[in-house]
Amino acid sequence: MGEQFIYEFGDGKAAGNAGMKALLGGKGANLAEMAGPALRLPVPPGFTISTQVCTEYYKLGGKLPDAIEPGMRAAVAEIERLTGTRFGDAERPLLLSVRSGARVSMPGMMDTVLNLGLNERTCEALARESGDARFAWDSYRRFVHMYGDVVLGLKPEGARDRDPFELILERKKEEVGIGAHGADTALTAEHLRDLVARYKAEIKARLGLDFPDDPWQQLLGGVRAVFSSWNGARAVEYRKIYHYPDDWGTAVTVMAMVFGNLGEESGTGVAFTRDANTGARHVFADYLQNAQGEDVVAGIRNPGPLARADRQPGDPPSLEELQPAAYAELMQVFTRLEGHYKDMQDVEFTVQRGKLWILQTRTGKRSARAMVKIACDMVSEGLIDRDTALARLEPGKLDELLHPTIDADAAEKAGQRPIARGVGASPGGASGRVVFSADDAAAWHGRGEAVILVRAETSPEDIHGMKASEGILTARGGMTSHAAVVGRGMGKCCVVGCSQISINYEREQFVAGAVVVKKGDVISIDGTRGDVYLGTAPLKAARLDDDFATVMRWSDEVRRLGVRTNADTPTDAAVARGFGAEGIGLCRTEHMFFSPERILAVREMILADDEAGRRHALAKILPMQRGDFDAIFSAMAGLPVTVRLLDPPLHEFVPHEAAEIRHVAEVLGKPVEAVEQRLTALHESNPMLGHRGCRLAVTFPEIYEVQVRAIAEACLDVRARGIDARPEIMIPIVGLARELETMRALTLRILAEVAAARGATLDLPVGTMIELPRACITADKIAAHADFFSFGTNDLTQTTMGISRDDAASFLPEYVARGLLPRDPFVAIDRDGVGALMRLAVDKGRATHPKLKIGICGEHGGEPSSVAFCHELGLDYVSCSPFRVPIARLAAAQAALARKA
Amino acid sequence: MGEQFIYEFGDGKAAGNAGMKALLGGKGANLAEMAGPALRLPVPPGFTISTQVCTEYYKLGGKLPDAIEPGMRAAVAEIERLTGTRFGDAERPLLLSVRSGARVSMPGMMDTVLNLGLNERTCEALARESGDARFAWDSYRRFVHMYGDVVLGLKPEGARDRDPFELILERKKEEVGIGAHGADTALTAEHLRDLVARYKAEIKARLGLDFPDDPWQQLLGGVRAVFSSWNGARAVEYRKIYHYPDDWGTAVTVMAMVFGNLGEESGTGVAFTRDANTGARHVFADYLQNAQGEDVVAGIRNPGPLARADRQPGDPPSLEELQPAAYAELMQVFTRLEGHYKDMQDVEFTVQRGKLWILQTRTGKRSARAMVKIACDMVSEGLIDRDTALARLEPGKLDELLHPTIDADAAEKAGQRPIARGVGASPGGASGRVVFSADDAAAWHGRGEAVILVRAETSPEDIHGMKASEGILTARGGMTSHAAVVGRGMGKCCVVGCSQISINYEREQFVAGAVVVKKGDVISIDGTRGDVYLGTAPLKAARLDDDFATVMRWSDEVRRLGVRTNADTPTDAAVARGFGAEGIGLCRTEHMFFSPERILAVREMILADDEAGRRHALAKILPMQRGDFDAIFSAMAGLPVTVRLLDPPLHEFVPHEAAEIRHVAEVLGKPVEAVEQRLTALHESNPMLGHRGCRLAVTFPEIYEVQVRAIAEACLDVRARGIDARPEIMIPIVGLARELETMRALTLRILAEVAAARGATLDLPVGTMIELPRACITADKIAAHADFFSFGTNDLTQTTMGISRDDAASFLPEYVARGLLPRDPFVAIDRDGVGALMRLAVDKGRATHPKLKIGICGEHGGEPSSVAFCHELGLDYVSCSPFRVPIARLAAAQAALARKA
Repeated sequence: MGEQFIYEFGDGKAAGNAGMKALLGGKGANLAEMAGPALRLPVPPGFTISTQVCTEYYKLGGKLPDAIEPGMRAAVAEIERLTGTRFGDAERPLLLSVRSGARVSMPGMMDTVLNLGLNERTCEALARESGDARFAWDSYRRFVHMYGDVVLGLKPEGARDRDPFELILERKKEEVGIGAHGADTALTAEHLRDLVARYKAEIKARLGLDFPDDPWQQLLGGVRAVFSSWNGARAVEYRKIYHYPDDWGTAVTVMAMVFGNLGEESGTGVAFTRDANTGARHVFADYLQNAQGEDVVAGIRNPGPLARADRQPGDPPSLEELQPAAYAELMQVFTRLEGHYKDMQDVEFTVQRGKLWILQTRTGKRSARAMVKIACDMVSEGLIDRDTALARLEPGKLDELLHPTIDADAAEKAGQRPIARGVGASPGGASGRVVFSADDAAAWHGRGEAVILVRAETSPEDIHGMKASEGILTARGGMTSHAAVVGRGMGKCCVVGCSQISINYEREQFVAGAVVVKKGDVISIDGTRGDVYLGTAPLKAARLDDDFATVMRWSDEVRRLGVRTNADTPTDAAVARGFGAEGIGLCRTEHMFFSPERILAVREMILADDEAGRRHALAKILPMQRGDFDAIFSAMAGLPVTVRLLDPPLHEFVPHEAAEIRHVAEVLGKPVEAVEQRLTALHESNPMLGHRGCRLAVTFPEIYEVQVRAIAEACLDVRARGIDARPEIMIPIVGLARELETMRALTLRILAEVAAARGATLDLPVGTMIELPRACITADKIAAHADFFSFGTNDLTQTTMGISRDDAASFLPEYVARGLLPRDPFVAIDRDGVGALMRLAVDKGRATHPKLKIGICGEHGGEPSSVAFCHELGLDYVSCSPFRVPIARLAAAQAALARKA
Repeated sequence: MGEQFIYEFGDGKAAGNAGMKALLGGKGANLAEMAGPALRLPVPPGFTISTQVCTEYYKLGGKLPDAIEPGMRAAVAEIERLTGTRFGDAERPLLLSVRSGARVSMPGMMDTVLNLGLNERTCEALARESGDARFAWDSYRRFVHMYGDVVLGLKPEGARDRDPFELILERKKEEVGIGAHGADTALTAEHLRDLVARYKAEIKARLGLDFPDDPWQQLLGGVRAVFSSWNGARAVEYRKIYHYPDDWGTAVTVMAMVFGNLGEESGTGVAFTRDANTGARHVFADYLQNAQGEDVVAGIRNPGPLARADRQPGDPPSLEELQPAAYAELMQVFTRLEGHYKDMQDVEFTVQRGKLWILQTRTGKRSARAMVKIACDMVSEGLIDRDTALARLEPGKLDELLHPTIDADAAEKAGQRPIARGVGASPGGASGRVVFSADDAAAWHGRGEAVILVRAETSPEDIHGMKASEGILTARGGMTSHAAVVGRGMGKCCVVGCSQISINYEREQFVAGAVVVKKGDVISIDGTRGDVYLGTAPLKAARLDDDFATVMRWSDEVRRLGVRTNADTPTDAAVARGFGAEGIGLCRTEHMFFSPERILAVREMILADDEAGRRHALAKILPMQRGDFDAIFSAMAGLPVTVRLLDPPLHEFVPHEAAEIRHVAEVLGKPVEAVEQRLTALHESNPMLGHRGCRLAVTFPEIYEVQVRAIAEACLDVRARGIDARPEIMIPIVGLARELETMRALTLRILAEVAAARGATLDLPVGTMIELPRACITADKIAAHADFFSFGTNDLTQTTMGISRDDAASFLPEYVARGLLPRDPFVAIDRDGVGALMRLAVDKGRATHPKLKIGICGEHGGEPSSVAFCHELGLDYVSCSPFRVPIARLAAAQAALARKA
């Protein structure tokens, strides 16, 4: 060591400051900042033992370094000097709190000990000094309980065991006749004194330990306990989940105790300097008279407001009424804190007999709405500039603003609790009658019913039912399952992977725990949290205000990345355009195949015996596809529309149930056996790695020929109406340069044919998805045939990691929970693996083709950390589902700011 | 151009030589070599127009460069000088042949024209000179036919059309009363003269062209036709398949005609300088008196031998008897050719009125047995050295020597033709009764029947049936399907992907074309060619002789790569050891789970409700696995055995048919619904990318714990018997360094526990499969936890290319046929994609861990070009199925020689 390891603060001086969170922890750094010369706020004096000491503690095998105790003694002496008290003194005893503090907040993960320094002697002195023996003995009782648990380790023995101190307390209450669950306040000083003795006896009996009376022994024990709690099971687990390094360590802050429970002139409170729900420039606080901080958290009494004006009928008096001076000072403190930290603060304070003490400050958590409003307000107020405001916003939270959501608090108040929980895959909330098939969904919707489609999982055949539903609930699948992707694409609320429900299609019902939900019953689903409610749950409406528009405008000023959308229909395209999409980065053509009037022609094509038969069926599909493209190109006038040619394996389009097979056979005039045989032939063991994408067009080129023709003809039709159509043609599942070479030649040939037939010119870009590791590795060769690349990171993640997203639910959550993976790689790009391949592809692609346009159209294109990574890689644009466009715009702006910094 | 483009040869001089195949084509280069000063063999004089002229021809849009004709005139003049004839002369006319010749042999792909220079005038001269008018007019007729077809382009019009010249010939034969299919020899000179006229009239009528009488016009047309045939459909297709570049071009060789059909003192023959079947040092030839080369090929008459001693009863007289001088000279030529080329030659020759002419020589194709024997003999004879002998061997051909094979020629002679053809996946031939289930196979085998197991595809549940069968036939799957891999592993003949058969399990029969094969019918399968025969087909036995042993010894002297085997049983291990395997590179443990007495315990484990239940079931499995390992470690005493822990997803072990589900439920005392529910939960959309390998052990660590314990205990048991057991433990499907870190910790913990319990030490290497792109990309981090890497190139190919090998049959053959891929990437490593990732993994792995041992245990480990690639990458060993070990040894030696060169 040899360096400084104790950082004192108090009385307008401080050895540390807010920038030293790594060394002092968040709490210690902010206390130093508040106590120090810049703010000189009324902070009880104290000191912080640095995180380096924690590291040293573990190096020494769980021992404090020798130099610590002398340092602490000097620091305690300074507290004594500033407070005019003495640690362990029989007249004016100093009491201390010992708190943990890592560089990031790990709420509840590590230990705290309050009221250190109490023993029989100092307790008597405290009683005398405060004139309140009950207060003194209650403080002592609380201390013995906390110390016995945290430092000495007297805890419940098993999961079902009760806290031994609580048991003693309940027994005592019964003895004094107030019942086991009577109020603590009914206990007298004598009762409390007796409890102290009983607690100590229990510790002796169960642990063989004498409770330490020596304040220094207490303090050193407390410090050791905090350090030890850094490697406690809870904290270790927490760090794994959030991927925080084990070697950060925790700091320990030791501070003079102040008491909010020293009578009516005392109290304690928690305040947000602005409204954390709405963002309004108005303090948002709870104040509890004659109470300690832990009482606020426990919610034992109804707290009052700070300002008189905020007092509602039935509320206790406000701080302004009770302690006008302290109130005035506190308001000033808030202003100074905001002015200093330039952000909304979450402040803990105590009033001890009229004197205000600030115990903690930190950046306040807030709702999405408040986040946006506060950012805009603070820029208007001149507190921060645009870039700072942008950098602070959490893009992912914008989702809350874009969808109506279930009001979980209101539901809880109304006694509604979730009957099951899955994965919230597409945000928003929805209620409706349960149906178990897409056809029912469409039919019920047709007669004006709101429905929720419940399926084990969805498939492209369910699209019409999904569209007709208010929301989708599936028992299987993850964040990028079919239901999730399509749901997000449609901006439709969706809960997936809800393994707690067990669906019985035959009986048309599902079971969740003890609840049986039948077809037609109403449920509500929360696509943000993943909750499922029986009945109608209360909703909060979406609201996009001027502040939202301002934030979006700022984002567009700053970002370099383009933002496009993934949209397959004119409706989706229009929604996305409304959200600011600058084009379509992925227009899937397979969804167009599923509408009832087309699927038959598609099946005819698949079941055809030869090319002529396929061409016959494709000729029926051509005008329909042309119509689709016409509408989409028109909706996106002036903006690029990247159309991906057919991607899924053909078996996705054929029926699998006996009745439907018979129907298809009949309509197409083929024997049932022929249809079944074709089905068997099309079956694939691993469809994800099967006969799909451009592989289909290598064996059946006529499919892509017709699609390209539909694009080309629609483009010329739209242009003929004076509308600027800008299609781009994208080939999926390319792994070999020769595949793209072949497909490009096919595409250019058809474009030339159509152009010649119409006497027009058609110079459309032709590019490729990059979604296989081999495509990344050979991107230099592939780029020779590409006008653009678009990363398909869903499939690229599947192939790079060898993980099927449809099957990952059985192990991926455990991987994330156990820290084997920092995050679900289907949500945030796996930078070390998938990301490294992307970088290779960008480098190699641009080596061949320096101006190669490169985008991403996987689900990751709307996830903030992935957007940042795409910015780093130097991509030209990201493309995401319509409702993620605003998120991507903000994330892209933040990425640009981060790189500038 | 400006360079030399015509290379003359003849009379002991030649402008070219055998090293100039790129410029002169194989044929032209060898003719120059034979005619030139080194050999001075009797080659008809001629010249070769280089491949550069072909390139120029295409550059000029299908036009011969101006400089060519003067060059050709000079070269023809030289032929005239040497032969004392003149091109187009009415006294002693020179006739020429024009032949194509690319740098590699492309048999039948390009065009040839013989007898150029004939017209009415020269034909009369030829008749006079030869004293044989019929010969002259027949030559002219053949010339007009060939030229009309090849140069002028009078061909059949559709696939069903007949050759117009053949039709005229048949009509003529009918007219002269010998019937449409009477012998040509029955036609007189007058008949033939009339045919010449009719042919020309047909050309005029159909093409509007006058047949050229001018010899120079004929010659230039012939040269143009050969160049044009380089871009003919057949040749283009052929080049795509073999990935020969389009810009190689063909050379044209123009040569004085010699005639083997000028009477009894003439004749023509083809000879191999040694026996191409057995390798015996004995000429192996056919000689046809009074015939042209095309007659030998057409097999119109039974040919005779060269030597009197080789004449069999019924044979025509030998060349030695007919033309003793020519015979003696020819024998001398053979000796000189072998001495010069240092290899067995395939020679075409003609005797024209007693004078021997050599028309072509090339390296002779030979059987595997001959290949090995000739290599050994030539080293003994001092013709070549060991390294040259090794470099020339084709490793893949050794397969023929290791398995008994179907004698296709004998079958054909016996009138047996294949009823279907699939992919020959595991070489050898086998006959047996057809069964359609593994259980039937085992039962029938039990009562002494030889059976062939016929399945749509096989799964691990079929292992016992596969083992009990003589051979396996599947309708689906490719070279690396389950059936193929297991078949090769067992050295068991196997035909897969035989889509021409349609299996009906219910009726217990399959249909191949018009043939219905029922259970119990005998079929034979040829695992080399992929043929399926009805009934018993004749077999050729495997024979490993001293020459084979010599070649293997040489290989071991030269190679640097180690060669291990993939073996799961002591039997396989022993076989492989016999073939020279230096250890086991992949011992799969899942096959051990499938024997009937174990599968129930395995299912109990899978169906268990909690860890305790799983441990209970695993405790039953432990002693069985220990026994397996004991036997394998003993069989491989002193050699390493790399054991791969459980890899496949659990659903591979559970039953899927209703009856079996009921049975399992009953035996385990669980409700059928519970079993079915578990089955549904285990179902995976893409099992290849599912919950398998180390992912199983992340969620259920007890599985690997028991496996490691079984390995550790078996190792100590075997060592206690004084046998040197050397297990290595390998973790599959690692994609994240933390996975391997976790699994390594688990492994070392169990090893330490077992060692401590036995008072022994156990320091076993722990390594990982590298079979996911992510593992390659992050190999530096993974190497930190690995004692060795082993490439699993089957899965690595699947994930890198995004191609499921089980589903690839629907498009991969077309990819290879159309040249999109040079070869099936599941057979030979895809160097640009998979190979690039392997290189990355080797570089990164060794950057962390410079002495990291790296091997390969995918199917590619036994494929020669892949073995060479592994050598290039600097791997330590390859591991392959037992029957491929000799191939790998030879391939490894060749790789070492190639790198030395």
